[in-house]
Amino acid sequence: MSSRTLNARTGAEVFLKCENFQRMGAFKMRGAYNAVSLLSEEERRRGVVTHSSGNHAQALSLAAQLLGVKAVVVMPKNSPQVKVNATRDTYGAEVVFCENTVEARHETTERLIAKHGYTLVHPYDDDRVIAGAGTATVELLQDHSTPEIIVAPVGGGGLLSGTSIAAKGLNSNIQVYGAEPRLVDDAYRSFRSGELESNTRTDTIADGLRTNLSERTLSYIRANVKDIVLVSEREILEAMQFLWERMKLVVEPSGAVSLAAILTRRIPVKGRKIGAIVSGGNIDTGEFFALLAKRIHD
Amino acid sequence: MSSRTLNARTGAEVFLKCENFQRMGAFKMRGAYNAVSLLSEEERRRGVVTHSSGNHAQALSLAAQLLGVKAVVVMPKNSPQVKVNATRDTYGAEVVFCENTVEARHETTERLIAKHGYTLVHPYDDDRVIAGAGTATVELLQDHSTPEIIVAPVGGGGLLSGTSIAAKGLNSNIQVYGAEPRLVDDAYRSFRSGELESNTRTDTIADGLRTNLSERTLSYIRANVKDIVLVSEREILEAMQFLWERMKLVVEPSGAVSLAAILTRRIPVKGRKIGAIVSGGNIDTGEFFALLAKRIHD
Repeated sequence: MSSRTLNARTGAEVFLKCENFQRMGAFKMRGAYNAVSLLSEEERRRGVVTHSSGNHAQALSLAAQLLGVKAVVVMPKNSPQVKVNATRDTYGAEVVFCENTVEARHETTERLIAKHGYTLVHPYDDDRVIAGAGTATVELLQDHSTPEIIVAPVGGGGLLSGTSIAAKGLNSNIQVYGAEPRLVDDAYRSFRSGELESNTRTDTIADGLRTNLSERTLSYIRANVKDIVLVSEREILEAMQFLWERMKLVVEPSGAVSLAAILTRRIPVKGRKIGAIVSGGNIDTGEFFALLAKRIHD
Repeated sequence: MSSRTLNARTGAEVFLKCENFQRMGAFKMRGAYNAVSLLSEEERRRGVVTHSSGNHAQALSLAAQLLGVKAVVVMPKNSPQVKVNATRDTYGAEVVFCENTVEARHETTERLIAKHGYTLVHPYDDDRVIAGAGTATVELLQDHSTPEIIVAPVGGGGLLSGTSIAAKGLNSNIQVYGAEPRLVDDAYRSFRSGELESNTRTDTIADGLRTNLSERTLSYIRANVKDIVLVSEREILEAMQFLWERMKLVVEPSGAVSLAAILTRRIPVKGRKIGAIVSGGNIDTGEFFALLAKRIHD
């Protein structure tokens, strides 16, 4: 999708790759589907497992359902009921609850793997998942005359890894940037230090980007990415509102982070062709519709 | 746009013609642009006028701006400032205020025409505007294997007139339905009685559909439309929320009325190919973003 207003405001030519229109509403479907489709016969028969309460859980569940494979999702006890329902009822996965700590999630997952022989499909620390995520960029380059810059959001780094490997593989002149919420700037700092840094806070509104890089994604990103830039929470909301009001696209906060980096010109976009990945559109609009419902006279 | 979930839920094959992605966010751009482009040299030199505070005002202003023609918009004094600003500042029209009555709007418009020789471009009671609106259906039929049914919302009847004339002209087997909010059911009643009926209330949330048919649009609709069906305010909101949450499309209430008629199966859609016009996406999301802004920690 493109927008005259967006081009006028940035002085650039911007193409959005709209992964909010992807199946189940986010790019996560690409990696999950790729991972499940690459399983051996034996692995398929046993099933897959992951620990996530976000888009990856639903993506893996749907991918497994489509390919006739059992999926098990480990979720913290305090996961929102709406996420549990979507994973279990809409996409038919088995949900196993655990205590609300990172350790408990890993322990529970390891126990299930040891007992049932499930294959772990990690949300981002997995080459099959990273390769799947990169297909968004392959399509972006098929659809448009080659952009000079491609921007992707960065959380755990799966999408940015896949984006940068795909872009550089197809055209080494393309510069790939990561965009990250300033509140959870571990990727920004890790990119500079070369070490895995951690976050002291995780309360960004871009809830899909709260996770940390892994050694694997840091290494891909250091090899292929030009820079990582930071955006504030308010800048994320402003970019998101632009997408909703001006482009009529429902995008979740994490999905607006690339555009925030462009609109703020923290990436040097002027006069250039830019591809930006809008990574997802899964957001609860219940409160907005509750406001509207108060205004109807029926 | 199409959706597996939508097809599964309706038992039909539904294609949405997304006029929320049209320039200035609604199908109104088509009729306004067509009307201004058909002016004579002399008429262009004098300019155009309309009375509207809705999408038509902005559409006419933008169309006139693009074609280098002066546009004057008569608006009631109590029009929302955001609409005044969009018409005047974004699209460069002259705004003339009048008292808050239908009579005052007409008198003011007539006075301006008498004094300056402007050409009136009525929001719907105008063959150039109706022909322009019909181009959405021409494109829908170019893009897809011929639908058996096409659905458009009905307010003043310009879009439904243009839709039905275009559809019947290209393929007389297509059945065209109008969808109308039950709260403002003048078109439903006029279609049955053959006389222009009026509404006692106008407080539907589908604010683009508050207007009445004209003799012209009633006559086109009676000649070409299969039926008009009614939907409740709640059904409009439910269809709108489906478009936002499942299809990631920002659509205004008026734009969701066609889909409401389909989702409620008030139109016999099962097993058939349906084209539905999503007429616009101009809605203020400020309240929702104010809620989100309270949740950020910056």
